[in-house]
Amino acid sequence: MRVLMAALIAGTAMTGAAQADALRDKALTYFAPLPSTVPAVKDNTITPEKIALGKALFFDPRLSASGVFSCASCHNLATGGDDNMETSVGHGWQKGPRNAPTVLNAVLNEAQFWDGRADDLKAQAKGPIQAGVEMANTPAQVEGTLASMPLYVEWFTAAFPEETSPISFDNMARAIEAFEATLITPAPFDSWLNGDDAALTAEAKAGLELFIDKGCSSCHSGVNVGGHGYYPFGLVEKPGADVLPEGDKGRFAVTATVDDEYVFRAAPLRNVGVTAPYFHSGKVWDLNTAVTIMAESQLGEDMSDIEVTQVVAFLDSLTGTVPPVTLPELPPETAKTPRPTVELLQ
Amino acid sequence: MRVLMAALIAGTAMTGAAQADALRDKALTYFAPLPSTVPAVKDNTITPEKIALGKALFFDPRLSASGVFSCASCHNLATGGDDNMETSVGHGWQKGPRNAPTVLNAVLNEAQFWDGRADDLKAQAKGPIQAGVEMANTPAQVEGTLASMPLYVEWFTAAFPEETSPISFDNMARAIEAFEATLITPAPFDSWLNGDDAALTAEAKAGLELFIDKGCSSCHSGVNVGGHGYYPFGLVEKPGADVLPEGDKGRFAVTATVDDEYVFRAAPLRNVGVTAPYFHSGKVWDLNTAVTIMAESQLGEDMSDIEVTQVVAFLDSLTGTVPPVTLPELPPETAKTPRPTVELLQ
Repeated sequence: MRVLMAALIAGTAMTGAAQADALRDKALTYFAPLPSTVPAVKDNTITPEKIALGKALFFDPRLSASGVFSCASCHNLATGGDDNMETSVGHGWQKGPRNAPTVLNAVLNEAQFWDGRADDLKAQAKGPIQAGVEMANTPAQVEGTLASMPLYVEWFTAAFPEETSPISFDNMARAIEAFEATLITPAPFDSWLNGDDAALTAEAKAGLELFIDKGCSSCHSGVNVGGHGYYPFGLVEKPGADVLPEGDKGRFAVTATVDDEYVFRAAPLRNVGVTAPYFHSGKVWDLNTAVTIMAESQLGEDMSDIEVTQVVAFLDSLTGTVPPVTLPELPPETAKTPRPTVELLQ
Repeated sequence: MRVLMAALIAGTAMTGAAQADALRDKALTYFAPLPSTVPAVKDNTITPEKIALGKALFFDPRLSASGVFSCASCHNLATGGDDNMETSVGHGWQKGPRNAPTVLNAVLNEAQFWDGRADDLKAQAKGPIQAGVEMANTPAQVEGTLASMPLYVEWFTAAFPEETSPISFDNMARAIEAFEATLITPAPFDSWLNGDDAALTAEAKAGLELFIDKGCSSCHSGVNVGGHGYYPFGLVEKPGADVLPEGDKGRFAVTATVDDEYVFRAAPLRNVGVTAPYFHSGKVWDLNTAVTIMAESQLGEDMSDIEVTQVVAFLDSLTGTVPPVTLPELPPETAKTPRPTVELLQ
């Protein structure tokens, strides 16, 4: 009898732990916790000098033709690494075509942009600087701007010590990538994946269970809970043109394959709770609404309000801690620095 | 004889020190070193809670109607506390009427704006937020925006603990003033005023001597080497309309007194070496040129190139160290937060 009781007690005690472990085991087949160190990136050794240079460049509005916008304008580290706009406002008050994704943890995405047209962050960084509706600059003018400031020459030399002409548009992009690689935001979900049962509320755990069981995690998986793989928006049912504008055919523009019409990268969901508005169109401000739309359009699921609330509680557990970023002091212009061009190029 | 030699040696030794002391004594009748503590401001007790709230507000683009601009956009702490533009670009890509002055040490100016129309920084802060060509917002919308975010409600309550309705446009301005009061940038000139002979080069000391003897310091004096007193631009000889546009009559717009036509506040010169372009029109990018124009127009002096270079060496000794500013993490929007208005109001 005593033996039986002890076995029962041990059994009960094991059940709670076993349940937690079972959910964690299941979760770990889909997701992974963030690394505790700066991730290595392809063809770009990360050094403290490169990170420091990249931080300066990230915050330097003189990378734009107008002198108004820096990387940080649309990827604001104070507001979740994005800009809280449907689509960003750029050069000449033009509106960009798609919602600016967060730069936080972006180094861990498989590719960059909503259509994955850039392989990595060093390729990505060169896009907005040249886009006419964003920073409207040219590689030559950027190089001229950087070379005009002795302090930048010093910093590029320190960051690329083996190169005879360290100042280049490509090296600028490499340095920005190095800085961005440091923007890793560990969240309660990581603590939980790493074994801290108390890091998630019961509601968030229920949401995680739904997130897996309903099928969200078949696309939104991996260390960034998304950020890899391309899927048609409207797999089961196309949302209205208010959410999915007809003019933007997504990855079709990259691959020119009919199968890729309205195909977009599954959004990485880390920090989704602080990066409204949602979708490539930026048309949905409320996360509950976004979850409801996704369930309908991608899974053909009509989720109850309680289920949506639980999933959102899980998604909120992906809001992480941004590493402290101290503003750089940027090199002052010289007589050779190109001046801001505010006028629209026609 | 031995006594005479000793007296001669002592005399020589004293001469160098006496010269340094004489220049310092003279300088101290015009200038003062920066304080080592955050300056007290009128009607606004500065507390850590108010500074922290003010920092968040300073960096929050949601204080603008469009969500594009924060105080930090035109008063960029990474580029000398201003924006390196002739005149700032604001809502709808409109250009502001005057060059944005630096926010660094601005708390020590006697009044704010080029025409001194705001008594202090809490009055100043309310201007650009409402200006149609800058942030284009309204006090009511700002209050609605702030009240929509629980974290702001918490922070305002902590910053204004004795008030029953702490969220107000006025308290927003008070908090911003509290943060801005911390932006004090001690420079080599302060070290020298405080007794460190080695802090200024011989060239800078020669420039300081010229700055005083030629009469620059009759207007550019005090702790901010300017920033108080109003003087006609073109006291001796009016510069051309390229530098002094005819349409901007300066302080005349504030006082409606004919004597105040083309009268502007003597610019505070701390960090002038990193805050090009110059003058209220922002039309001059080169500091040597700006000094030459000032000497001609205000003093009727035709300074030699060497003299100008010496004065600029002195002015460069006013470039100070910006206190480290770690970016805030701003409260996320809620369903009640007003959305960005990118359209121009007609």
